[in-house]
Amino acid sequence: MTTIRSFNPPIRTLMGPGPSDVHPRILEAMARPTIGHLDPVFVGMMDEMKSLLHYAFRTRNELTLPVSAPGSAGMETCFVNLVEPGDKVIVCQNGVFGGRMKENVERSGATAIMVKDEWGKPVDPNKVAEALAAHPDAKIVAFVQAETSTGALSDAETITRLAHDQGCLVIVDAVTSLGGSPLEVDAWGIDAIYSGSQKCLSCAPGLSPVSFGPRAVEKIKARKTPCQSWFLDLSLVMNYWGGGTKRAYHHTAPINGLYGLHEALVMLQEEGVEHSWKRHTDMHEALKAGFEALGLSFVVPEGSRLPQLNSVTIPQGVDDAAVRGLLLKRYGLEIGAGLGDLAGKIWRVGLMGHGASAKNVVFCLTALEAVLSEMKAPIAAGVAVPAAQAVLAAKGY
Amino acid sequence: MTTIRSFNPPIRTLMGPGPSDVHPRILEAMARPTIGHLDPVFVGMMDEMKSLLHYAFRTRNELTLPVSAPGSAGMETCFVNLVEPGDKVIVCQNGVFGGRMKENVERSGATAIMVKDEWGKPVDPNKVAEALAAHPDAKIVAFVQAETSTGALSDAETITRLAHDQGCLVIVDAVTSLGGSPLEVDAWGIDAIYSGSQKCLSCAPGLSPVSFGPRAVEKIKARKTPCQSWFLDLSLVMNYWGGGTKRAYHHTAPINGLYGLHEALVMLQEEGVEHSWKRHTDMHEALKAGFEALGLSFVVPEGSRLPQLNSVTIPQGVDDAAVRGLLLKRYGLEIGAGLGDLAGKIWRVGLMGHGASAKNVVFCLTALEAVLSEMKAPIAAGVAVPAAQAVLAAKGY
Repeated sequence: MTTIRSFNPPIRTLMGPGPSDVHPRILEAMARPTIGHLDPVFVGMMDEMKSLLHYAFRTRNELTLPVSAPGSAGMETCFVNLVEPGDKVIVCQNGVFGGRMKENVERSGATAIMVKDEWGKPVDPNKVAEALAAHPDAKIVAFVQAETSTGALSDAETITRLAHDQGCLVIVDAVTSLGGSPLEVDAWGIDAIYSGSQKCLSCAPGLSPVSFGPRAVEKIKARKTPCQSWFLDLSLVMNYWGGGTKRAYHHTAPINGLYGLHEALVMLQEEGVEHSWKRHTDMHEALKAGFEALGLSFVVPEGSRLPQLNSVTIPQGVDDAAVRGLLLKRYGLEIGAGLGDLAGKIWRVGLMGHGASAKNVVFCLTALEAVLSEMKAPIAAGVAVPAAQAVLAAKGY
Repeated sequence: MTTIRSFNPPIRTLMGPGPSDVHPRILEAMARPTIGHLDPVFVGMMDEMKSLLHYAFRTRNELTLPVSAPGSAGMETCFVNLVEPGDKVIVCQNGVFGGRMKENVERSGATAIMVKDEWGKPVDPNKVAEALAAHPDAKIVAFVQAETSTGALSDAETITRLAHDQGCLVIVDAVTSLGGSPLEVDAWGIDAIYSGSQKCLSCAPGLSPVSFGPRAVEKIKARKTPCQSWFLDLSLVMNYWGGGTKRAYHHTAPINGLYGLHEALVMLQEEGVEHSWKRHTDMHEALKAGFEALGLSFVVPEGSRLPQLNSVTIPQGVDDAAVRGLLLKRYGLEIGAGLGDLAGKIWRVGLMGHGASAKNVVFCLTALEAVLSEMKAPIAAGVAVPAAQAVLAAKGY
């Protein structure tokens, strides 16, 4: 075979839907020496990890841990542990990830009752209430708080309350919200939640923080059938991640990835999670002012926009792939394409974690304006950065 | 909450059953800047990864990729994709991991026919032949080539031939063998195989290289029921890992972990996989001479011993946990405990990847002899290192 050399990636600025730029402190943490997954020092780190996840999720749930695989596996962990064959699950879909939830429900041998909203809109709580009324035997309501495919924020508190009123549990996708948008697992009573390391935590992809409340734990304990996944079976995983000094081997934990997540959560604690939420909103406001000055319009209605994921409509006549390609080639700037029906129609611009910065806001506006101008797109020139800067100045940055 | 600081792990020497010591080049690779999972440069790295895995597995199987989770998920990938409800699967068990295969079979809705051998012994091909004769309707034979819980090496070539003679596919656990012991996926006709990053590749834990041959792909394509796991469904994963420049998003790949695996495989190619196999054997011979000089006896019969995992019986009257605890505390040396019925009865000493070195051989012998002497264990003093060194010298190290 041809000799293959070490891989040295280029330096990018990641302003897509994730992975976001990983902070140098986190990259450095991942390069620390590997130790054993049963080493007492590592076990101490695991205890800290749980405390840090409690802080980030705003919960005291005992069953809180990082699944040893990306967010999709966190999603599957929730479904295969909580859903039993024959269950009826109400699944809200307003983008790609609601559809993935449906797949998870059906592959768990259950029935998915779909509550559909237009892509780009939040989940409509009235439709959820109607579905609950029409299906009094539903066991679970599953929805995405922060729909990464569109940038829509749904009202997790209200949907959870509606579900609880009818005795349903909720499963919440917080992959893109954790650390970037208000999220109150205990105050809102969320029963099961999963997130990802590679969004607003600025960590490398590969881990999925999850948390399960008392009602969820009860449902898991009362299962009549074993969890269909051995790898994701929480009754087994907890022998390793459960409290105490006696940790039983289940699978080999991704040690260095966990170093990175620990560092990311330490940084979140240093900043303060509420400050992080505010910073994401402030940077979104600045970027929004710039986008609007350029003449770009948002996909998601005001009031339901995720600050960390800004979806805008691609101006008529502009070649999606050519713009993204040139931004990447010339400026090393990655922005996201649309998914599914929105492919070629929207861009998704992420402001996540430490990438939610004034630097990234003006860089993105500058590069996008330059490339769109070169391509003779119908945009207003010379006004985006000043508009963004005015917001930044007003907010004290 | 109490303020939690950055985690700085101690420096260990990892001579347990894995994770093994991660080479500094690999640690450094994991700290390189994260880029997007659809970045054309990353896609180029994925193509290289496939070539490197082809080299390591000695295969040309198109369906060869690293699963984005630890070896246990690689195991589950094989079972949930290849096993259908109602199938009959012959599972060979001679340690912990055969038992885990049984769990996977049953959770896939299939029946496991167990072929049991004593822990520490290799799988007996005669028993496999008997089971095949007794169950002509079996679809798959699953076995562990390198049983990490005991250090026994089974004859993968012979078991595969027996299975094929009856039209069965094989699923092979090569978690501990890949890179450390001869393994010929194409020459032996192995249909499905999984491994782990954290053993003889000296990489951090968290990834599981897998490979599927043409018969396995045919069985996957002919499935009557969808794969029960969305995350591990190869028909979906292949839209991302499949060849060509068009890669469809499935889940966010663990970018930095993949940098590490790429570097580990580049290093394997630099050394040459056959040289790596020989080095593991040479270091095992040296360690064995030292252990025998100390008076320790091997658990696995000569001829079936894995060079990379040396299981020895704990001398009578010696406190297992006290010895391992002191080795760790005083010398930063981790060796492995026994699992299951062998807990407290054996130690498992790994010589894996770049840890299969003369330095580690003499360090382990020195530290173990010192600690056992201090604890007044019945061992011979002052002879282990000379015995090991004689082997090293004879082999030209």
